[in-house]
Amino acid sequence: MTQTVGKQSLQFDKAVHILSGSSVVGKKEGEGPLGAYFDVVDDGDDQMFGEETWEEAESALQKEAAQLAIVKAKLTKDDIRYIYAGDLLGQLIATSFGLSQLQLPMFGLYGACSTMGEALSLGAMTVCAGYAEHVLSLASSHFGSAEKQFRFPLGYANQRPLSATWTVTGSGAFVLGTKGGKARITGITTGKIVDYGIKDSMNMGASMSPAACDTIFQNFQDFQRQPEDYDKIFTGDLGYIGQEILIKLLKDKGYDISKQHSDCGIEIYDRQTQDTHSGGSGCGCSAVTLAAHILPKVERGEWKRVLFVPTGALHSTVSFNEGQAVPGIAHAVVIEHC
Amino acid sequence: MTQTVGKQSLQFDKAVHILSGSSVVGKKEGEGPLGAYFDVVDDGDDQMFGEETWEEAESALQKEAAQLAIVKAKLTKDDIRYIYAGDLLGQLIATSFGLSQLQLPMFGLYGACSTMGEALSLGAMTVCAGYAEHVLSLASSHFGSAEKQFRFPLGYANQRPLSATWTVTGSGAFVLGTKGGKARITGITTGKIVDYGIKDSMNMGASMSPAACDTIFQNFQDFQRQPEDYDKIFTGDLGYIGQEILIKLLKDKGYDISKQHSDCGIEIYDRQTQDTHSGGSGCGCSAVTLAAHILPKVERGEWKRVLFVPTGALHSTVSFNEGQAVPGIAHAVVIEHC
Repeated sequence: MTQTVGKQSLQFDKAVHILSGSSVVGKKEGEGPLGAYFDVVDDGDDQMFGEETWEEAESALQKEAAQLAIVKAKLTKDDIRYIYAGDLLGQLIATSFGLSQLQLPMFGLYGACSTMGEALSLGAMTVCAGYAEHVLSLASSHFGSAEKQFRFPLGYANQRPLSATWTVTGSGAFVLGTKGGKARITGITTGKIVDYGIKDSMNMGASMSPAACDTIFQNFQDFQRQPEDYDKIFTGDLGYIGQEILIKLLKDKGYDISKQHSDCGIEIYDRQTQDTHSGGSGCGCSAVTLAAHILPKVERGEWKRVLFVPTGALHSTVSFNEGQAVPGIAHAVVIEHC
Repeated sequence: MTQTVGKQSLQFDKAVHILSGSSVVGKKEGEGPLGAYFDVVDDGDDQMFGEETWEEAESALQKEAAQLAIVKAKLTKDDIRYIYAGDLLGQLIATSFGLSQLQLPMFGLYGACSTMGEALSLGAMTVCAGYAEHVLSLASSHFGSAEKQFRFPLGYANQRPLSATWTVTGSGAFVLGTKGGKARITGITTGKIVDYGIKDSMNMGASMSPAACDTIFQNFQDFQRQPEDYDKIFTGDLGYIGQEILIKLLKDKGYDISKQHSDCGIEIYDRQTQDTHSGGSGCGCSAVTLAAHILPKVERGEWKRVLFVPTGALHSTVSFNEGQAVPGIAHAVVIEHC
């Protein structure tokens, strides 16, 4: 039976199995340090994946990641009872158009770049409760569609400050189920909105790190764990600047995670050669890093227990232009070898 | 124990109680046929609710509805374990800024105008599974923020075709729990994305009615029910045009719902005097109609069993301008007197 632990966490005593993970990325991600581990790398320079617009390209990414995760789990789409999915775009168009052909019951989610954590959390809650034998959780982002929506037209060629991150072009998908696989989700800590009043839309790391701190701190409290109870603690896309802030904030609260902490946004690009400044970002960043880098190591038992904490900056050009800050949110998922 | 029934439904044998519902609306909604039943009607002509922008006004609506639902359930915010919430705006800014002060674990949702159905479904799944004693499910929309995002600047004063609907300015919130109240959620049918290729962004009823048909048909199949097993079947915001299409589509599939069917978008405005053409729409439309009109009648036992089916048009100006159609989705919730 599942147990509610502490203020914000659930412990799944009937742990939820991760049957498969898939990753589909663009050329730049394929050229990064994790390039060899992605399932599919599109080598087109235009990031179009054979489509006519960036949004359609992102839909194509989601569709391919979804199908691949189902195949890797040795299932067919009719074995999946629910989809939990989202992306960064207004009205989740990458998701809507990417997944409509699957013709499966769907819950659309928005948690900015924390969406992969939200989708895994709700998917695990659903499977553990016996509502489904299998669910599909996925998320995506695309550099072109994100820059178009949130920042400047790519053709404008604006200079990016060193605090900026680079939106990952990619989608990661996961099949969760009642049995199978070598990794399981044993618990979750669901995040609150945390607003430190950060108003620099080119420094998402600063806006998200207080939310990451809040969720990780609560995870330690709720599960009565210390940093060393995890082999690794992965945030989603804080980047170099956000990482520094997070480690400091948690130190102030009595926890030193500097030995365990990594960030998907730091892992996915080589900042020296790839001109990505503070690191990678976007819903796809943590999603594909989980599928290609983290999950395989947990499955092989190299890491026994990992805390996976996708981080989201609830950034909108509308609210930003109206003078609002960029609040953050982070959802933590405990993943263990089995 | 909960049972998965048929392809897309869950039956909660440990039914989830609706402890309270609250509705906060604008002046126009207050002047409509349901005006006397809303909890709070703001009588300001500017729909600003004391704020400086429409988006902030919508956040204020959500905040007030949330607080009111908690008070009406005789709880405090610390009794709520999760929030399930969403709105129509890109990156859910009405929700993010409206609910951040509650400082509660939150799952952001996007299902266009079906969001209230999605939030009640996930909330009920959460309570029934024992993950929470109380959750808060809510949704909002605002005429000003929606027109700004999806259509024309209000100052442009464009003519609206007769097929257009009027976005409801309002937020409805509900506290779900394990016991209490006079109404319960006994089952859900989760919708798929249904795309009939409708490309008229001024006729959302046509784009959503196939999705409503699909979900209602599946509800009948999964629960082995006939239309007369429900006292009422409420869709969210199909309006007059969508209603006609829905009834015809379901007739073609062997079900006549013309006696049971109502639509929240039809109920909320007087089309003769309020110039709202096909009816009301927006996440707030079904949310406040449930709180002010449907739920009280179920609580009093006037209606024993109602099928509540918020309907969403997955409309985005970006995808629309790129030539894509407007797909629909609908999530059904079975609400019964207890």
